[in-house]
Amino acid sequence: MAAAPSPKRRVTSRRAEICRTAARIFRARGFDATSVNEVARALKMTKAGLYHYFPSKEALLFEIMLFGLERVREEVVEPARAIQDPEERLRQIVIRHARIVTRAQGAVAQLSIDETRALPARARRAIAKQRRVYFDLVRDTLAELKTGGRLRDVDLTVAAFSLIGMVLWLPRWFHQGGRLTGEQAATELATLALAGVLRDAPARRRRVRRQATSE
Amino acid sequence: MAAAPSPKRRVTSRRAEICRTAARIFRARGFDATSVNEVARALKMTKAGLYHYFPSKEALLFEIMLFGLERVREEVVEPARAIQDPEERLRQIVIRHARIVTRAQGAVAQLSIDETRALPARARRAIAKQRRVYFDLVRDTLAELKTGGRLRDVDLTVAAFSLIGMVLWLPRWFHQGGRLTGEQAATELATLALAGVLRDAPARRRRVRRQATSE
Repeated sequence: MAAAPSPKRRVTSRRAEICRTAARIFRARGFDATSVNEVARALKMTKAGLYHYFPSKEALLFEIMLFGLERVREEVVEPARAIQDPEERLRQIVIRHARIVTRAQGAVAQLSIDETRALPARARRAIAKQRRVYFDLVRDTLAELKTGGRLRDVDLTVAAFSLIGMVLWLPRWFHQGGRLTGEQAATELATLALAGVLRDAPARRRRVRRQATSE
Repeated sequence: MAAAPSPKRRVTSRRAEICRTAARIFRARGFDATSVNEVARALKMTKAGLYHYFPSKEALLFEIMLFGLERVREEVVEPARAIQDPEERLRQIVIRHARIVTRAQGAVAQLSIDETRALPARARRAIAKQRRVYFDLVRDTLAELKTGGRLRDVDLTVAAFSLIGMVLWLPRWFHQGGRLTGEQAATELATLALAGVLRDAPARRRRVRRQATSE
């Protein structure tokens, strides 16, 4: 098993390439059915060279999942926490997360979802803990909208899981180079997600607020 | 590979038990890492007895996926097609599909999503064709709502995939015996899904319609 990562671990392009390429191969052939040799070949490394960085196939899988979760922390969780308005925060969470999972055919995201089972218990707990941080951000944002009277009468837990599920489903159907760009898909998804949970359309609410101000 | 199923194949409780139990074991241990022996043992069958029905592990996997798709056809697609109003049809699609995927911890649904890769090309095409029928029903229902002016300004393809994704995400977080029953989760999900795509809340639209009638 790899040692626990330092929180300031750097995202080098080499590390990103190893994680994304390995994730793609594991996805295509199945984690159990793929040998370290096949991954090394795809990365133009020797098996010994790859083992230098990752003492086992499971350590490489853990590294891929941590890489994905770090992207979510740096590109979604941290910027979102800096946004005061909960509606805008929720929109940014969906858009930013959707951006990540459409990158590189979403191989890292999809592998991370399907293959947690292959990790030892300690690694699974570390992954679950980081996922919980993200889930709590979404749920707390919904709770804040509810307190402000801006949420429909929806169950917070069902809503939080469903929003996350819509985003994590994206790499299963979205294809780079298709009719929609990743950015368009992300924006469409955010529109759907917010309409599903917010009390009325943002445009209408803004209009109402403007009228209230001018009266 | 198993022969193509007859359209009138019966759902016996034994068949359902074999599919659900095998799906659960494949999910827990990984399809590639699970032996036919382990599946036979869990079903209290001999390996030879299981091979009598399924000539290979892949044939059993194909059988599980067909079983899941038949449930969708019989319990979602066929009843939904009999509903004239597209809004009610969409609600029933979500509720009925959600009911299926919360059954038996959703093992069949989850396995079907993750393990298509392990099937030979011909079987993959058969599965993809049946999934397409379901996708088209959702998309056509959304298109009908759009024609009737009842849909928000959403992309039909993004909306169709996202609604299906919300439902197929359900077995990943829903636990039998938790705070919500399967039926409550299904109803909550349908409320979120419809609010995400429909122009305004059904209650308001009904009120408007009543006013129009009384004038």
